[in-house]
Amino acid sequence: MDSLELISGLAQPSSTKIVLLVIDGLGGLPHSRTGKTELETAKTPNLDKLAAAGVCGLIDPINPGITPGSTPGHLALFGYDPIKFNMGRGVVEAAGIDFDLKPGDIAARGNFCTVDDRGLITDRRAGRISTEKCAALCQLLSGLTIDGVKLSVLPVREHRFVIVFRGKGLSPDVSDSDPQQAGLPPKAVTALNAKAELMAVVANKFVEQARAILAKHSPANMLLLRGFSQRPQLPTMSEIYKLKPAAIAAYPMYRGLAKLVGMQVLNTGMTIAEEMKTLKENFSSYDFFFLHMKKTDSAGEDGDFEGKVKLIEEVDKALPTLTGLKPEVIVVTGDHSTPAMLKGHSWHPLPIVLCSKWCRLDKVDEFSETACIPGGLGRFPSTQIMPLAMAHALKLAKFGA
Amino acid sequence: MDSLELISGLAQPSSTKIVLLVIDGLGGLPHSRTGKTELETAKTPNLDKLAAAGVCGLIDPINPGITPGSTPGHLALFGYDPIKFNMGRGVVEAAGIDFDLKPGDIAARGNFCTVDDRGLITDRRAGRISTEKCAALCQLLSGLTIDGVKLSVLPVREHRFVIVFRGKGLSPDVSDSDPQQAGLPPKAVTALNAKAELMAVVANKFVEQARAILAKHSPANMLLLRGFSQRPQLPTMSEIYKLKPAAIAAYPMYRGLAKLVGMQVLNTGMTIAEEMKTLKENFSSYDFFFLHMKKTDSAGEDGDFEGKVKLIEEVDKALPTLTGLKPEVIVVTGDHSTPAMLKGHSWHPLPIVLCSKWCRLDKVDEFSETACIPGGLGRFPSTQIMPLAMAHALKLAKFGA
Repeated sequence: MDSLELISGLAQPSSTKIVLLVIDGLGGLPHSRTGKTELETAKTPNLDKLAAAGVCGLIDPINPGITPGSTPGHLALFGYDPIKFNMGRGVVEAAGIDFDLKPGDIAARGNFCTVDDRGLITDRRAGRISTEKCAALCQLLSGLTIDGVKLSVLPVREHRFVIVFRGKGLSPDVSDSDPQQAGLPPKAVTALNAKAELMAVVANKFVEQARAILAKHSPANMLLLRGFSQRPQLPTMSEIYKLKPAAIAAYPMYRGLAKLVGMQVLNTGMTIAEEMKTLKENFSSYDFFFLHMKKTDSAGEDGDFEGKVKLIEEVDKALPTLTGLKPEVIVVTGDHSTPAMLKGHSWHPLPIVLCSKWCRLDKVDEFSETACIPGGLGRFPSTQIMPLAMAHALKLAKFGA
Repeated sequence: MDSLELISGLAQPSSTKIVLLVIDGLGGLPHSRTGKTELETAKTPNLDKLAAAGVCGLIDPINPGITPGSTPGHLALFGYDPIKFNMGRGVVEAAGIDFDLKPGDIAARGNFCTVDDRGLITDRRAGRISTEKCAALCQLLSGLTIDGVKLSVLPVREHRFVIVFRGKGLSPDVSDSDPQQAGLPPKAVTALNAKAELMAVVANKFVEQARAILAKHSPANMLLLRGFSQRPQLPTMSEIYKLKPAAIAAYPMYRGLAKLVGMQVLNTGMTIAEEMKTLKENFSSYDFFFLHMKKTDSAGEDGDFEGKVKLIEEVDKALPTLTGLKPEVIVVTGDHSTPAMLKGHSWHPLPIVLCSKWCRLDKVDEFSETACIPGGLGRFPSTQIMPLAMAHALKLAKFGA
């Protein structure tokens, strides 16, 4: 019996509410000048108050040393083993634009890119063309049928799109065409096993047709595909936890992920303050809320230490709206670390605070990477957050006689 | 290879002794007035001395967030994976009244109940008849033989009894007859697979015979059965650890559990002082002692904060008898938390101290939930206590070349 089976056997519906606030890429590394991380630098009186009133700790999204992508980072937060339920990028992007993937459909993430006369990539992002331009190009490519397989090509944002292959006998076990660096030509898509040969043939035929169609549309005169994948068989959060869950997230990918695990995705604005307003308006209608703050991660990826500090302070300022609603359980954490000093996701554990009437207090009174080390929750895998939140909301029955 | 296989391959007999003192329901939550848990409120100079002389930590009986029943809580302390070796209610109840279940026996938990003229349940507990009345009714029902299967019906307490089916070809894979609510008739016992058909037939014939026998004994004019189960295939503690283990426990269920894992159950009195006396008298004859203090859990379940504090102090006062015997390893912990504030078992981790000549000291000098957080043992699953105790008793060989 795995952890999800254990929990789903014990979960019981109740009127108590859980809010999980995810500050994307929350964890950081000390600035070389100050010796303080982004979170330690930010003035966060409300988060510190929550730390003092709750129980703190550090989480590992996957395993110590493993740097998570956004998808496994979030799946772990929702209680799903991110190694067992790893999802391809294509599926997540498709969900993010509300494309309803059917069983058997294969989705891939696409980039428009620029190639030179010899076919070598000069810009993997085609100069970040506008979303409008992207939509127009997708229109040109969509609706093709190749060897009986129907193709849908759908714009995401800027140079990014999703392609969905619908037909019989397709498999996601093919390699990417994206070589992940400039100066090389796009790679041929290759079958990783015998069952995937049709998929590779169709993908390569599509790429060649697209090359011809896009030829005159420089800088977007070529495309790259990666993350061929199909919709995984996931039990929903309602099935596992007997919750009525809602997601408040501005970015398509996170909205898509939330939908894949069965959350109701609410309409919301782009700022954390607008997201908090959405929470308040919908508070009576659900008993679990996933509230997602994306921009902290983007600032970390851009190496913008000060920007990330300011965004964390923005979350802190918006926090009283959440605490004022008095949900029975509040959890604040992130999906992974994104230290500005590293300009990317990292493997470092990140702080968590859980606040509830039934939490056993510790001595932590500051919400930061270092302050949470001696917290009462200790250091534990992200997948255990949901069982802990459920327990503190008195939503889990006793195990065994 | 699971943990038990690993340990049993390394365990070697030796003259050193281990005492595991289990203070049932030890962990608590802070009192709203003082901010201190039961253990933090209690004056425990001897436990604090042990904490200072040993190494401390926090244990999770099953998984973070999971509230354990008494059976899985104790199985984990003895080193058995409590999810893998989960035991049915019938088996635990039978063990609790010292009924010696043989391989192949099926035990079920029974309730006497009240039904009306139409056969609908009006009281699932038959007005909680006296234990004496229960014993008299069990006498009427016991000793029947149905289709070659011999039945024993044994009183537990008030309306509760145990029924044991002994015969060839029985399986526990049958449904309960107890519909778990009044207003319905008792359900037929149904086979959950083909091997369980005889068991279902015998159970239903018994229920109908019992209906006739009990007809004139209102309010106990019917019965309900649940938790059909058989003695699990457990390796004994002697097989795993090469120990000669003894149990000192006043309450039947814990004596039963100890017997199920192969301990010698010693006669003892009801108080912790009497249990300590039993330990002293038998100290030379065994090399592992499970010493169980039940009343702390009962006080917690009653919401009696002060009572639990006093009982913890009682344990503390009796501790010098144990320490005076100088076993090579002393472990003091509990099977789970039972905070008086929650009036029931809970999921919160609980403190542990391990004291031995070979433990690496930490800075903890107080035995409590909060004080043990920075302990040298960290936070870990209860199932790892036995390997740690064995190691500190120098009873485990090196793994690998």
